[in-house]
Amino acid sequence: MGRPSLIDSTEGIEKRLAILDAAASVFMNLGFSAASLDDISEAYGATKGIIYYYYRNKSALFFAVQRRAMELTREAIEPHALAGERPAIRLRRMAHDHTLLMMEHLAYLRVAAQGLELHLTGRTTASERAELEEILKLRAANEALYVRVIEAGVQSGDFRPMDPKLLVKPLLGALNWTSRWYHPRKNETAKDRERVADELAGFAVSALLPHPQ
Amino acid sequence: MGRPSLIDSTEGIEKRLAILDAAASVFMNLGFSAASLDDISEAYGATKGIIYYYYRNKSALFFAVQRRAMELTREAIEPHALAGERPAIRLRRMAHDHTLLMMEHLAYLRVAAQGLELHLTGRTTASERAELEEILKLRAANEALYVRVIEAGVQSGDFRPMDPKLLVKPLLGALNWTSRWYHPRKNETAKDRERVADELAGFAVSALLPHPQ
Repeated sequence: MGRPSLIDSTEGIEKRLAILDAAASVFMNLGFSAASLDDISEAYGATKGIIYYYYRNKSALFFAVQRRAMELTREAIEPHALAGERPAIRLRRMAHDHTLLMMEHLAYLRVAAQGLELHLTGRTTASERAELEEILKLRAANEALYVRVIEAGVQSGDFRPMDPKLLVKPLLGALNWTSRWYHPRKNETAKDRERVADELAGFAVSALLPHPQ
Repeated sequence: MGRPSLIDSTEGIEKRLAILDAAASVFMNLGFSAASLDDISEAYGATKGIIYYYYRNKSALFFAVQRRAMELTREAIEPHALAGERPAIRLRRMAHDHTLLMMEHLAYLRVAAQGLELHLTGRTTASERAELEEILKLRAANEALYVRVIEAGVQSGDFRPMDPKLLVKPLLGALNWTSRWYHPRKNETAKDRERVADELAGFAVSALLPHPQ
């Protein structure tokens, strides 16, 4: 409703994504409370008017960044989760692409972590809580994709017997922690990131394998 | 200096720890910015005067909680890290006790996570940054204990060849994530927590084992 023509056009979608990119960086660097719409419009390189055209306030931008982080994650893992390969191979590819995503869209994933902190502390308004609940649902759906593959692996014997709903927690911790420790190095190449993603994927799969002997 | 007699007595130490317990709960539930010294003195069950006797302001309490979180972690893992057992056994015990600690001192570890977020966003004063640097050093020392055991395990053949300084990151992520997802259940027993600690320790060790075949 209202002004759909520009917002839904290809140009509108590209603009929205560019605004979100700018917002993600600003939130990552300053945190939600310190960041202002002025900071974001400056990072985006346009007046605040254009941002207000797409997002009604700072809070809406914060949640849009988090929602996009969850969507990017789903896009990275879902095709592998639903593929016909063996569970261990599916899990390796999910963990690999999930890790690469975190390194390549660090700001989005770090803002998602900020949102989770905000949720945990509970100092939120009713409408913020409704938004956070939506995002938690997207987060839970991504987790469910991992649980599904772990369950399949336990059944097939790829993985040892375990409680998939418990073991998915350290698995996601191992991957999500990347947004805490990872900082791109000077002159880093795609190959460097590939190596990190390979190592983390190996870690994740190995953690679930049957114990030797 | 100044008033050491009461502060350093057994009674003084016990009081300080009880104040920290109260502060940890309040920071966990409200977050650093929303929490007030009134909230903390109410949770502690005494006037603000007694808190000011030990801590000069809210910020000092916030950092004292984080410092204690790092010290508790060191106390949980260091004895195992330095023991004479095989590296895989040492790592299993470290991960086990680290996880139990997080469940039993959830508020401390969650406040430590808040502090890390605050550090990442960088919206801190110079004296806060100095305090945060101190805490990061304690955090790094704990990480170094894990790296040391992973290195020993790679050398002994307990673990597969790997880069210990990289692989320690997902390992700590798997353990530290507990402070995000864990909520004590009604009627939970020490045995329930023991089971979680066992599963997470198994996950951590398994992640580093040589791959079968």
